[in-house]
Amino acid sequence: MPGNSFGKILQLTSFGESHGKAIGGVIDGFPAGVDIDLDFVQKELERRRPGQSKWVTARQEPDKLEVLSGIFEGKSTGTPIGFLVWNKDQHSTDYSHLKKAYRPSHADFTYEKKYGLRDYRGGGRSSARETVSRVVAGAFAKMLLKEAGIEILAFVHSIGEVSLPGNYETPDLSKTEESPMRCPDKETTEKMLRLLEKTAKEGDTLGGTISCIAKNIPVGLGEPVFDKLHADLGKAMLSINAVKGFEIGSGFDGASMKGSEHNDLFVKKDDRITTKSNRSGGVQGGISNGSDIFFKVAFKPIATLMKSQLSVDADGNEVILEGKGRHDVTVVPRAVPIVEAMTALVLADHLLRNKLSDIKSIFQGR
Amino acid sequence: MPGNSFGKILQLTSFGESHGKAIGGVIDGFPAGVDIDLDFVQKELERRRPGQSKWVTARQEPDKLEVLSGIFEGKSTGTPIGFLVWNKDQHSTDYSHLKKAYRPSHADFTYEKKYGLRDYRGGGRSSARETVSRVVAGAFAKMLLKEAGIEILAFVHSIGEVSLPGNYETPDLSKTEESPMRCPDKETTEKMLRLLEKTAKEGDTLGGTISCIAKNIPVGLGEPVFDKLHADLGKAMLSINAVKGFEIGSGFDGASMKGSEHNDLFVKKDDRITTKSNRSGGVQGGISNGSDIFFKVAFKPIATLMKSQLSVDADGNEVILEGKGRHDVTVVPRAVPIVEAMTALVLADHLLRNKLSDIKSIFQGR
Amino acid sequence: MPGNSFGKILQLTSFGESHGKAIGGVIDGFPAGVDIDLDFVQKELERRRPGQSKWVTARQEPDKLEVLSGIFEGKSTGTPIGFLVWNKDQHSTDYSHLKKAYRPSHADFTYEKKYGLRDYRGGGRSSARETVSRVVAGAFAKMLLKEAGIEILAFVHSIGEVSLPGNYETPDLSKTEESPMRCPDKETTEKMLRLLEKTAKEGDTLGGTISCIAKNIPVGLGEPVFDKLHADLGKAMLSINAVKGFEIGSGFDGASMKGSEHNDLFVKKDDRITTKSNRSGGVQGGISNGSDIFFKVAFKPIATLMKSQLSVDADGNEVILEGKGRHDVTVVPRAVPIVEAMTALVLADHLLRNKLSDIKSIFQGR
Amino acid sequence: MPGNSFGKILQLTSFGESHGKAIGGVIDGFPAGVDIDLDFVQKELERRRPGQSKWVTARQEPDKLEVLSGIFEGKSTGTPIGFLVWNKDQHSTDYSHLKKAYRPSHADFTYEKKYGLRDYRGGGRSSARETVSRVVAGAFAKMLLKEAGIEILAFVHSIGEVSLPGNYETPDLSKTEESPMRCPDKETTEKMLRLLEKTAKEGDTLGGTISCIAKNIPVGLGEPVFDKLHADLGKAMLSINAVKGFEIGSGFDGASMKGSEHNDLFVKKDDRITTKSNRSGGVQGGISNGSDIFFKVAFKPIATLMKSQLSVDADGNEVILEGKGRHDVTVVPRAVPIVEAMTALVLADHLLRNKLSDIKSIFQGR
Repeated sequence: MPGNSFGKILQLTSFGESHGKAIGGVIDGFPAGVDIDLDFVQKELERRRPGQSKWVTARQEPDKLEVLSGIFEGKSTGTPIGFLVWNKDQHSTDYSHLKKAYRPSHADFTYEKKYGLRDYRGGGRSSARETVSRVVAGAFAKMLLKEAGIEILAFVHSIGEVSLPGNYETPDLSKTEESPMRCPDKETTEKMLRLLEKTAKEGDTLGGTISCIAKNIPVGLGEPVFDKLHADLGKAMLSINAVKGFEIGSGFDGASMKGSEHNDLFVKKDDRITTKSNRSGGVQGGISNGSDIFFKVAFKPIATLMKSQLSVDADGNEVILEGKGRHDVTVVPRAVPIVEAMTALVLADHLLRNKLSDIKSIFQGR
Repeated sequence: MPGNSFGKILQLTSFGESHGKAIGGVIDGFPAGVDIDLDFVQKELERRRPGQSKWVTARQEPDKLEVLSGIFEGKSTGTPIGFLVWNKDQHSTDYSHLKKAYRPSHADFTYEKKYGLRDYRGGGRSSARETVSRVVAGAFAKMLLKEAGIEILAFVHSIGEVSLPGNYETPDLSKTEESPMRCPDKETTEKMLRLLEKTAKEGDTLGGTISCIAKNIPVGLGEPVFDKLHADLGKAMLSINAVKGFEIGSGFDGASMKGSEHNDLFVKKDDRITTKSNRSGGVQGGISNGSDIFFKVAFKPIATLMKSQLSVDADGNEVILEGKGRHDVTVVPRAVPIVEAMTALVLADHLLRNKLSDIKSIFQGR
Repeated sequence: MPGNSFGKILQLTSFGESHGKAIGGVIDGFPAGVDIDLDFVQKELERRRPGQSKWVTARQEPDKLEVLSGIFEGKSTGTPIGFLVWNKDQHSTDYSHLKKAYRPSHADFTYEKKYGLRDYRGGGRSSARETVSRVVAGAFAKMLLKEAGIEILAFVHSIGEVSLPGNYETPDLSKTEESPMRCPDKETTEKMLRLLEKTAKEGDTLGGTISCIAKNIPVGLGEPVFDKLHADLGKAMLSINAVKGFEIGSGFDGASMKGSEHNDLFVKKDDRITTKSNRSGGVQGGISNGSDIFFKVAFKPIATLMKSQLSVDADGNEVILEGKGRHDVTVVPRAVPIVEAMTALVLADHLLRNKLSDIKSIFQGR
Repeated sequence: MPGNSFGKILQLTSFGESHGKAIGGVIDGFPAGVDIDLDFVQKELERRRPGQSKWVTARQEPDKLEVLSGIFEGKSTGTPIGFLVWNKDQHSTDYSHLKKAYRPSHADFTYEKKYGLRDYRGGGRSSARETVSRVVAGAFAKMLLKEAGIEILAFVHSIGEVSLPGNYETPDLSKTEESPMRCPDKETTEKMLRLLEKTAKEGDTLGGTISCIAKNIPVGLGEPVFDKLHADLGKAMLSINAVKGFEIGSGFDGASMKGSEHNDLFVKKDDRITTKSNRSGGVQGGISNGSDIFFKVAFKPIATLMKSQLSVDADGNEVILEGKGRHDVTVVPRAVPIVEAMTALVLADHLLRNKLSDIKSIFQGR
């Protein structure tokens, strides 16, 4: 049963393999009348491109967005937005050596067993190239969220063992895009770069963590009991390639705190009710409480190494996978716009869903 | 828009407030012809009951399951299984003091803002009493999984700062239910009990972590790209009250490992292909690979304290919430069957979904 | 895969067999803050009861609604509304002779083949008793539609070969409930009653047609391209037991008209744009145009006769099914509230869906 | 909320406007391992093309299918199948006179009111050009149905007042494609052609009916209670442009029959249980019974005339719409492949859904 659609009202249906003709999708449920800035979408796409620094893969992928429907005279029309990005070089024969071999910690083995066959060229559907569709749809979602004033800012929190000091409130997020590591702290960025250089020489790879903050969130997003806001955020993040963990607010640290330390006390401030602390990460009872939403996502290291690895093929014979070509040491900086895109899709979907919670909101647009 | 249904093929739709007439639900998509053991369902329900030790709340809730449809002569009929558990004492007036006050780190504030009104009696829909429906549906899912040989074992990994040593492979899971803390290690259980006693005296509360292992998993569960198996597991866990974090396999630790340390190398063993290590947690590319699935879930401490807390009411006036009645110090041991139930719902749903992946499986039941 | 849920935003999930413990369901997505009149729901339920005249079955079914959740202090809370109606006499043994026999034009054969087993008592899930849940949910939907001024009026158009003269505009719909046949014309009612009397004597049964009109419909309900308003209405009607046909506006007659005869010309009237004629039945391009919605539904005659019929059993042996007990000659009058209920569910769902079509509506409640 | 997806397991998500860049879609849930014949899909597309006779529009639309994903080495891979057909001449300025005018019985008015704006070029999303996606997806569904031996045959039953004599059993369906009217009877075809010629001269248009028969249907397709097979077929048909009515089996005629005339008696024939007659149209209790499925669909006449019509514009001013260009007199013959495509989508979806009804089918592929 299909799993290529995301969202209940604002819905992305995605398609495409890394070495097929194109990556694309359909965004349905996008309201009519929103001003559409396709340059912004293209820029978001470029943020996920490789080749942004010497530490990320040099393979050129000129990802030019083509929108096929749903926009008329600069505005969304309420009809589905079909889009695609053509793949280049899909006829390359680089991947024939993978026809039968199962790369360690890749999806080769599981796809083949699930489907009875697999498109072995560059990971096929399991390639992170699929996230092109997420970033495009996320950019549309951001345009919708902008109408409500909502802003999303993700950044690299750690690479390998090099981590930002302190917690989410510290960094100056206006600096994120200045850093080649998308880490808002200059000193940490330097350390990360040194670690990357060292790891590249070893032919090895690194994972890391990304933090994400969403600001100006209205109270009320999230649908009890199963579609809690952080449950949908968690699913969104865990659906991104290489993600192994998700925590919101105090997260795993919160598990070792006492209730009296952890509770966020309500206070009245500037004529509205808010909380003193924000260990909840902006979500209480599965519903946004108006504070910043913040969460952290763990990415495992890239499975493709530049050194050789032992594996088996479909017949169970041992094979040696040589590290060839030129690969990323880490995907974490490139994943920042993907984390933002998936966050935007969840928040925009819940913004729409929440409009139907209450009869006053429905008839009076409260 | 509704958020009270879970699952795509095997689907639970849940209803009920803590002090309404009943908690219940409808299980749809449950295949016909499965032998139904209602005593087993009742036993699962009893595992989530309070009052199982002196450290958990003494309020008696004799949760007697009533199944209303979908079973005939001891077998499922393929029609929806309606069920309920009556609430006792729903006319109690204990909660009038909460009519206007917002309890810290509860859902009072967010529900009221979202819906314009709220059932303030005991948390209403936001109460963990709602998990009764999850446990019932999870028990049905376990009966279905049993047909495929799949087994699910969750246990308490830590309470506050007291944690099991080592990783998931260590504990002898046959001991879990013997421990009042549902922790399979005797010594750790003792430490946890001492911590609970101390914390109870302080009028404070504790969180903790639960680990869950699923065994005998067929290769192929999980649907790329959004409904990856661990993404659906993560959503399921994060939808449980008080959960703040989820990690699968190496999880957050994996983010600081190198690729060469993290990769699970394929080997041939006993004529089937498997992996030497299992840092993937049994899921690769979003699809189960036949190894044990294991993940960990973080629960924040209970927000209701036995000591008084400062808060505000709907008008923004300061109020003092007195700690009264008798409350749990921690819910973590009681959450073990809930974690298992949600795991069972996800795995059973994906077991069914996977049957439609491949034309051979469809026509030959492969 | 389950088929017991109806609606995308306002969603009914239904359960129950005719001789199980109860019929019930869960209404999810019902907005908070709507005044709930449970007496009205009970009255709607009574409209579908048998025993309303001597021509419909005498079996007493005192269908007392029990609402289990989702309402607090007389208002909907935005949480799911669980409800049930207990079945009486579910332990009757009247149906043992049907254990193996397949009644002609019933669902005995198809259920048994689909599911491998069946609850043979009174049709089980395939019984029209299942429509209790539809009527309850429809009554809730009507309360929601009332907030938008929408009104739904169904009536019997024909029984067997006795039909109302003229088209939908003729009848005075305030007279429908006065007629024992729910036919708004006195003379036609008399003819229908005479036909029923004659047919009852023959031990035979009758079908008929129901027309339905919905008034005060806002422009904009219906979602291109698959969820056109009349497509969802058609599905709703065809999902009711014994329905074999659906037509909207000019319907099958329209197929033999010329374009110049059929087109509804736009005119300006009382400062709004409307159409001179209404052959579209109030829906154009799948979207309501503000005119009355009207459609017609065909019901086949009841399959259970009072005379004996030849059939086969599960082993293929010939069996004679004796007409026993006392049965309806026609269900058509009792189906009027069911047609209304399903119409209400579709319109309420689309009323909510339409609120999200356009950014102005979303943020300004236009 | 979106309405551009169809199907629950085999799901088409469609996009595209008549004068946008492309029409296309994503087919998700298509099982892996099916042999894909893209020439067949292209041929199906050509069956819906205009210009097939002198009576249908001469505008050339060389609809060349481009498949973007989901197929590898001639087989489906289980991943989503993205596809598109480019629109030609989308920059034509033919439609500027429609910028403000509302064409009678078109969707101009309702789209504009629903969305606040509309793409007025050639109907935009409301154009029947959208059915290109349906035909492509339907062709894929047919390839899946072929694995189960299922065949679908639709044909023109009537055009205006010229109709095939007799009922569904009569015509020799191998003759359908030989007829320029897609009517399997030569004499009726002649009459239809004469009627078209006459109507064309009048500048007028015609509707008609299409019958559809599906053969070799397994018992068990259809999901009680809302997703009855004929309810989903009815929705599918009513979602096609210009359709105003749907009936299955005896349909509206059945409403005036007696039970003893209407019932399909079970008999044993060639060692399997079947029915003597087939007034049920192959569906009982919402589930296929193994007999041929047959139903009829009513199409209203084309709303665009070659003669001038009076209408109003967005300001309520009267406008005269001149009949210009060259238009179809009727779409009914071209709609035959569309009816087949939507039938194929419904049957393929239910074929997959039914595989999960029963535990034996799930584990043994029964």
